[in-house]
Amino acid sequence: MDMTQNSEASRSLTKVTVLVRIREGILDPQGQAVCQALHDMGENDVFTIRIGKIIEIFLPSSEDTEEKVRLWCDRILANPLVENYEIQGIEPVRQQPMSV
Amino acid sequence: MDMTQNSEASRSLTKVTVLVRIREGILDPQGQAVCQALHDMGENDVFTIRIGKIIEIFLPSSEDTEEKVRLWCDRILANPLVENYEIQGIEPVRQQPMSV
Repeated sequence: MDMTQNSEASRSLTKVTVLVRIREGILDPQGQAVCQALHDMGENDVFTIRIGKIIEIFLPSSEDTEEKVRLWCDRILANPLVENYEIQGIEPVRQQPMSV
Repeated sequence: MDMTQNSEASRSLTKVTVLVRIREGILDPQGQAVCQALHDMGENDVFTIRIGKIIEIFLPSSEDTEEKVRLWCDRILANPLVENYEIQGIEPVRQQPMSV
């Protein structure tokens, strides 16, 4: 067993960025509230605001990263009834975000 | 007053996409909860999840669109203490999302 190679592999890290948007035609109360708040501030030249999520996932690099993330999206990250998702990018990264 | 031109201008529409992320080092309870949920499902090869917002703003096209949106971000769309924002794109669009 090549420990060096193993240890190298365990350090290899991927960031997947997923955008989750509320489906067209589905009410977005958060977006409406922000839009209304802008109007209340006198900013009337905004028509519509839609607010979704950007999900950044840090995981060990592997061949089936996209497949895994799609599974997670289908199961837990997005609600297919009211949201759709898009995998915006898959990129190698040096380190995870600093945790608190 | 040229009504034709005015009417043309009023139909010209821009979509601005803003990404709002929680600053590095700031706790992200939503991301932690989703990460824990994946672990609980037996998906252990995920290290960290960070969840931010994607904000899509539909407004009449104008010269100072970016300036306006940056003002709104500073004032209301992002909390500079714990979040930072990035204007991901400014693009002309044909129509707003269908409202409900």
